Amino acid sequence: MTTEFDTRMMSRALRLARKGRYSAMPNPHVGCVLVRDGEIVGEGFTQPAGGNHAEIQALEAAGNAQGTTAYVTLEPCSHQGKTGPCADALIAAGVSRVVVAMQDPNPIVGGNGLEKLLAAGVEVECGLLQAEAEAMIPGFIARMRTGRGRVRAKLAMSVDGRTAMASGESQWITGPEARADVQRLRAMSCAIVTGVGTVLGDDCSLTVREQALNLPPAEAALAARRQPLRVVLDSQLRTPPGAKVLDGSAPTLLCHDTQVEPTAELIAAGVDRLPLDRAGSGLDLLAMLDFLTARQSNEILVESGPHLAGAMLQLGLLDELIIYMAPTLMGSSAMPLLQLPLDRMAQKVPLLIEDIRAVGRDWRITAVPG
Amino acid sequence: MTTEFDTRMMSRALRLARKGRYSAMPNPHVGCVLVRDGEIVGEGFTQPAGGNHAEIQALEAAGNAQGTTAYVTLEPCSHQGKTGPCADALIAAGVSRVVVAMQDPNPIVGGNGLEKLLAAGVEVECGLLQAEAEAMIPGFIARMRTGRGRVRAKLAMSVDGRTAMASGESQWITGPEARADVQRLRAMSCAIVTGVGTVLGDDCSLTVREQALNLPPAEAALAARRQPLRVVLDSQLRTPPGAKVLDGSAPTLLCHDTQVEPTAELIAAGVDRLPLDRAGSGLDLLAMLDFLTARQSNEILVESGPHLAGAMLQLGLLDELIIYMAPTLMGSSAMPLLQLPLDRMAQKVPLLIEDIRAVGRDWRITAVPG
Repeated sequence: MTTEFDTRMMSRALRLARKGRYSAMPNPHVGCVLVRDGEIVGEGFTQPAGGNHAEIQALEAAGNAQGTTAYVTLEPCSHQGKTGPCADALIAAGVSRVVVAMQDPNPIVGGNGLEKLLAAGVEVECGLLQAEAEAMIPGFIARMRTGRGRVRAKLAMSVDGRTAMASGESQWITGPEARADVQRLRAMSCAIVTGVGTVLGDDCSLTVREQALNLPPAEAALAARRQPLRVVLDSQLRTPPGAKVLDGSAPTLLCHDTQVEPTAELIAAGVDRLPLDRAGSGLDLLAMLDFLTARQSNEILVESGPHLAGAMLQLGLLDELIIYMAPTLMGSSAMPLLQLPLDRMAQKVPLLIEDIRAVGRDWRITAVPG
Repeated sequence: MTTEFDTRMMSRALRLARKGRYSAMPNPHVGCVLVRDGEIVGEGFTQPAGGNHAEIQALEAAGNAQGTTAYVTLEPCSHQGKTGPCADALIAAGVSRVVVAMQDPNPIVGGNGLEKLLAAGVEVECGLLQAEAEAMIPGFIARMRTGRGRVRAKLAMSVDGRTAMASGESQWITGPEARADVQRLRAMSCAIVTGVGTVLGDDCSLTVREQALNLPPAEAALAARRQPLRVVLDSQLRTPPGAKVLDGSAPTLLCHDTQVEPTAELIAAGVDRLPLDRAGSGLDLLAMLDFLTARQSNEILVESGPHLAGAMLQLGLLDELIIYMAPTLMGSSAMPLLQLPLDRMAQKVPLLIEDIRAVGRDWRITAVPG
């Protein structure tokens, strides 16, 4: 049985969890609130990798947690990772009741933490605000349940669905608020995938820039402490050594055709590479995603031109589209949103549009391919 | 000085006015409320052309209007049209105070009705809820002030900005709610403009269908009492005599090249024609709109393929775009939203997006070209 007070405390834990959304990865961002006699005595959220989990933060903040109720947005872990098992820490601290929003989504360990708590005589409740908790960590859940993180493509287009002029000219379609929103998408991602065409055309840096996030200073500083992995699909290794993606400001991985040998210059520069087999008309994108999963990538952002995004969509590899629509018409000669050659209406790709909202002068469309 | 009570009564008059929006044309739809001692004693709205204006309806409903205040959404007319001047009728009925939302937008007669009332000793207030009143009759205002009605293009596209497959296959992109919304757009229009390509491709009827309006029965019946003029841009007179646009269920005008002679079959069928000079790569669209203005067209709806809509946009003839966006991707081989060949970002057409809202499973974007 949970009460209205329990719900309020779990809501607070969820708000705390959000503070870790740009920094906790590859761990899920979790929040924890410790309460004794209706008073909050400690709280915390997941610290950057290697740091404390939310429960340990909260226990340390409380000092003495004897007889408290712990509200945790995710089942406390029962295994030894970089930090000790949180379930054991809660038991050792004398916590008498644990309310969790959702079980660990990993089918192998899910429920173990709760069982350990029960076995130690702790009262346990599970499922309070579960939908809200699940919506907060979709990438982690996807990686645990399906063996692949959540892949989201970011696109920017005009109202008539165009992303660049035929010449390639495209900067800037969207306004500063939309670009800040993209910065925040990058900051919550473990990897950013692009094609060599985008690197050659725009010489983009694909980094998270603290000043560009438009977040409160403390949150921005936390978000910029780490940079997502930049992944360039570059079958022929055409990325110039002087490209911004190779400037060392963030880790970078060049995915290339196994048949293509890197130049001495690339080898000397120590650039990370992932040789991939060919599949269809390009590289094996599934193998690329498997590599990112092995690297514990929860959320993967595709920021590419219409060819790579179109290929991933056709392979069913995109879980979500975030489309920034600028209030403009770029005309019928301009480049398409996605390279997606279809002949008949029956082939059209249904979308579930989850949200459309204004972002500055632009509009953001969030859609899930059907 | 107007009071909060006055505002409430004018709001009621505006709601009444809306009842005439599908039937009053070419007159503006107007509402009138007569009040004595805080009690409504009569009200009315503009009847179909040739019928009573709103003021006369209200006076007839009241029977005795001596000493009342009249709330009218538009300045009462002072000239003899199909019906007598409403200003004279209000004076004759002994109305002692007239509150109007806006002056007559016709620069030649604007203010005359109010002056006539003042000269007769009637107390007059003007400008209450003026913005709301103006927003209700934009086509009539445009025709009075600029000599041309308001031209609105209706388009239906996928999220990636495509309107039909390359083969021409397009039915149906949007769902039933969006199609009912289009029916209502038709019903509020004086003319519907299309190209012969759409006629040949879709054999569309372009009529208002009472059952398809999704309106309350009385409103639907009123809306379907008249049909907008169907205007086909058909320079070579390729419209087949058996086309649905020539089925006689609504008036139709074929606009064609002056150099092209109609077939005997078309002449025998008694089809209305408007010969137009060529301008640029097509017919003289300005002359077509001038003809529609002379025919007192307030709101003109363009329902065409990408070529005609694109040409009108490039000529600056579109005042508004209504774009129904279906939750689907039609791909990069499909037809563009508008035939609009632009080479450089500097040429892109800015839009003011006034509204985006869900219509069934589709989304309606209302935009004004900049």
